[in-house]
Amino acid sequence: MLTDIEIAQAATPEKITVIAERAGVPEKYLEQYGNYKAKVDYNLLTDEAHTPGKLVLVTAINPTPAGEGKTTTTVGLADAMRRIGKNTLVALREPSLGPVFGIKGGAAGGGYAQVVPMEDINLHFTGDFHAIGAANNLLAAMVDNHIHQGNALGFDVRRITWKRVVDMNDRQLRHIVCGMGGKASGVPREDGFDITVASEIMAIFCLATSISDLKERLARIVVGYTRADEPITAGQLNAQGAMCALLKDALKPNLVQTLEGTPAFIHGGPFANIAHGCNSIIATRMAMALGDYAITEAGFGADLGAEKFLDIKCRLANLKPDAVVVVATVRALKNHGGVPKAELNEENLGALEAGLPNLLQHVENITTVYKLPCVVAINAFPTDTKAELDLVEAKCKELGVNVALSEVWAKGGEGGEELAREVVRLCENGDDEGRSAKTFEFAYGDEGGIAEKIEAVAKKVYRADGVDFTPAAKKQIKHLESMGFGEFPVCMAKTQYSFSDDQTLLGAPRGFRITVREVKVSAGAGFVVALTGNIMTMPGLPKHPAAENIDVDETGKITGLF
Amino acid sequence: MLTDIEIAQAATPEKITVIAERAGVPEKYLEQYGNYKAKVDYNLLTDEAHTPGKLVLVTAINPTPAGEGKTTTTVGLADAMRRIGKNTLVALREPSLGPVFGIKGGAAGGGYAQVVPMEDINLHFTGDFHAIGAANNLLAAMVDNHIHQGNALGFDVRRITWKRVVDMNDRQLRHIVCGMGGKASGVPREDGFDITVASEIMAIFCLATSISDLKERLARIVVGYTRADEPITAGQLNAQGAMCALLKDALKPNLVQTLEGTPAFIHGGPFANIAHGCNSIIATRMAMALGDYAITEAGFGADLGAEKFLDIKCRLANLKPDAVVVVATVRALKNHGGVPKAELNEENLGALEAGLPNLLQHVENITTVYKLPCVVAINAFPTDTKAELDLVEAKCKELGVNVALSEVWAKGGEGGEELAREVVRLCENGDDEGRSAKTFEFAYGDEGGIAEKIEAVAKKVYRADGVDFTPAAKKQIKHLESMGFGEFPVCMAKTQYSFSDDQTLLGAPRGFRITVREVKVSAGAGFVVALTGNIMTMPGLPKHPAAENIDVDETGKITGLF
Repeated sequence: MLTDIEIAQAATPEKITVIAERAGVPEKYLEQYGNYKAKVDYNLLTDEAHTPGKLVLVTAINPTPAGEGKTTTTVGLADAMRRIGKNTLVALREPSLGPVFGIKGGAAGGGYAQVVPMEDINLHFTGDFHAIGAANNLLAAMVDNHIHQGNALGFDVRRITWKRVVDMNDRQLRHIVCGMGGKASGVPREDGFDITVASEIMAIFCLATSISDLKERLARIVVGYTRADEPITAGQLNAQGAMCALLKDALKPNLVQTLEGTPAFIHGGPFANIAHGCNSIIATRMAMALGDYAITEAGFGADLGAEKFLDIKCRLANLKPDAVVVVATVRALKNHGGVPKAELNEENLGALEAGLPNLLQHVENITTVYKLPCVVAINAFPTDTKAELDLVEAKCKELGVNVALSEVWAKGGEGGEELAREVVRLCENGDDEGRSAKTFEFAYGDEGGIAEKIEAVAKKVYRADGVDFTPAAKKQIKHLESMGFGEFPVCMAKTQYSFSDDQTLLGAPRGFRITVREVKVSAGAGFVVALTGNIMTMPGLPKHPAAENIDVDETGKITGLF
Repeated sequence: MLTDIEIAQAATPEKITVIAERAGVPEKYLEQYGNYKAKVDYNLLTDEAHTPGKLVLVTAINPTPAGEGKTTTTVGLADAMRRIGKNTLVALREPSLGPVFGIKGGAAGGGYAQVVPMEDINLHFTGDFHAIGAANNLLAAMVDNHIHQGNALGFDVRRITWKRVVDMNDRQLRHIVCGMGGKASGVPREDGFDITVASEIMAIFCLATSISDLKERLARIVVGYTRADEPITAGQLNAQGAMCALLKDALKPNLVQTLEGTPAFIHGGPFANIAHGCNSIIATRMAMALGDYAITEAGFGADLGAEKFLDIKCRLANLKPDAVVVVATVRALKNHGGVPKAELNEENLGALEAGLPNLLQHVENITTVYKLPCVVAINAFPTDTKAELDLVEAKCKELGVNVALSEVWAKGGEGGEELAREVVRLCENGDDEGRSAKTFEFAYGDEGGIAEKIEAVAKKVYRADGVDFTPAAKKQIKHLESMGFGEFPVCMAKTQYSFSDDQTLLGAPRGFRITVREVKVSAGAGFVVALTGNIMTMPGLPKHPAAENIDVDETGKITGLF
């Protein structure tokens, strides 16, 4: 069996100019980055008349070590849509360098449903994350320089909230003391680094709708507090112009292609816990502007990814999706049904049935909380048995859940035509109960306080009995509301493995409560982050990092990347 | 008077495909980065037959706050060479982001002798420095991860020599304690960040001649020592393959153009104190392969930049320059003659004459130590008086020194034709004393110990009476020679402002000794670094950083960049 990189390297991609023409990008908006990548100028969205196409969100059950194949399904679905004659584009997130050298490997789909050039996409790509890191670290340097030069704004050095970032899994930088070495080298204080995708700039970048909007958001970033508890912003340091200059090219969406030549935008990639986990609004809008259908995805399972896509991204960008695809695999459902990873290759219909409630709760959330048409995509894996695949399909149909088998990993777009036809049906006609983009509702409104919004998500989406706020969290909520951030949507930082905040509670748990330990504002992004546990914003490398096996030969060919 | 960025933005550059055709780059080697930048595949050097053109080095007197205009002269000379009918290319260093947001501003020439697009070149350009930073920081993460996972190689955590980098002026990171926060987050130790251009990877990158050579050099990097004083290398961590994968695209030289459409490679930019301060060997070779003339520059004054260009880069790359240009300005010479910066606008023939020995010693070094043809370029400045310009010219001629006035800042290539004709004469015929590329000699040979090489540079080039080694430096030299690094050339880290190691000794000081305080190896780069004082490898921002004035508008136009 070929690896992903072998399949990707065996492909003969078309020149990006051909892909751009297929996508309908006028030449003047195209900036080539080599022969197979390009950036598309965001001015296309304002300068060229267009009717936005249908928007399809691909999300998934709660992730398990077995894998779900959300990106694979997204890519394969788009290829299948093209095969059945629909002008379709994809909008995906950019991968972080950190996991590439750690455990996870690349993130550009898999099998015969990939975006290419996969090595470039997984390494620096067009430099967007480096630009975001530079903007982040310029702001950090300006904060500490301001303090060093006299601290006119009155920063409390114990309450600098702006951290530096590096796009690397580097646990050694999680907790540091900086500014050591005497009076020429800054002011000593505790600090720490995050991985670049956890930077608020990444979230801002993905929510910005123009250069001006980006600059305004950057200026609103809260970088720390005075001893009197007053927030200090990036705008007060006059940092937003230079930061925006560093980001101006990055803000142009990156165009690449699937293995079958479908145009794909890959742009931005914020964390799906402390941030909203979706590609940029500009890329999504561009895919909709150019395609009759735009297929996009959201991070982690639907309780985090779809919830934030719908309650944050769609709210801020005024988007209304036409259909939602929930991806599940037989292996992952068996894991939710209690089977450990080592035994997932064996047929187990009992465990499979026991795991189904996880899938069904996600579907129900989409249809009853958000009132959107939904279809389950069963992402077929070589070890699945026919009996297992039949069982999932039969159970879904029994409960009136739309379902389609997807074999895009093994067959490319051809393996996704059934799913594509179902997606088209839902987009064109709505579902049998009359749901469509027009019936779309948020899980909570703009009004009401921060606590009420958190409770709405916890009760409606997670099915928790309620929410407990620690005393610290209660105080923080009061402080944030006093600063005027009560109107912001909430961004839940929770384990991705469970509907609850306990990662061992698989399936569809009931009778639990959510504990919110900390609440903070991402004022530039425009949301309030509620943390339900220790969320890791700087991963570490494993005992044997994937980096040890990566190599490149004299022709520039890379090996060992997964 | 227009600013540099205004002149640059008023220009109408040609498409990079036109420039590439002018340079003679076959289309298959060209990778566009937008419309005005491209990378050229290094395989051109091995796959295409070519006769290397003449090589011209532009260097300068010791820098002063008045400015010398070395890059401006390099660019203007190349434009002038084209004007007089010579197929000429430029090879320059890439600027660092740090100074752009600090004090210095951009580094892409000035006036009517600039390379464009200057905003791109000064910001991320094609991402090379970010790639170098990522490779550097991957290695750092692998070092600390190795220690965290059990430290099988036996690192002494007090003697990790590999530092992390960021391409930013950030004094707060000079001295840190990392690995805090308990056993899940690394092992506590003292550490610090350098600016990216100070990374050994930057030096390696600029000295590598191919992917394989790059990988071998990366593997040789010494990242720390055991308690038994044994070096531990990047190769022992299996880091070189992944690092090389991160650098494979960066290693392709970047093609841009001057304001007059001369093809220019801008590639790599190592520090000129702890490293050798020249653009990449691959870019220099490519400029020579494509042009009948390649004009390149070296960092700081000729005592550091030219010395290292000749003794390190030319030695390692087997290059023999055909002529050397030493740039001087009337203002800088007056400063060397004792005039403070505030009074440089006033005519002062006495001070000018008093400053001339600085220029003449550099010229003499080129002609008598390195035995190369040399010409002085007087880079005219608007405040220079005719009497001042005449004086420099007359004094040079009196001493038999070739000299030409250069007015490229004000007039572009047209202002450099006199200089260009002199350069062509020296390249074609050698100088009147018979010097040419064939008579080129190094300041020292490969043989002899580290101390002897340092002494050769100090006595022959700086004109010091001798070198004092601190006890620590003596011990380090012994240790490095025992490890087999005695054959390496030496890279002197010294103040750029004086021939001596005392930055207040301007002009051509005599009767001084050089003190070497520390000696360390850059085993991957292939040189031994001798430090004569505290060399700053992480700058800080000034009270009012240039970043505060940089902005970008909705069309993407940047302002406030100098």
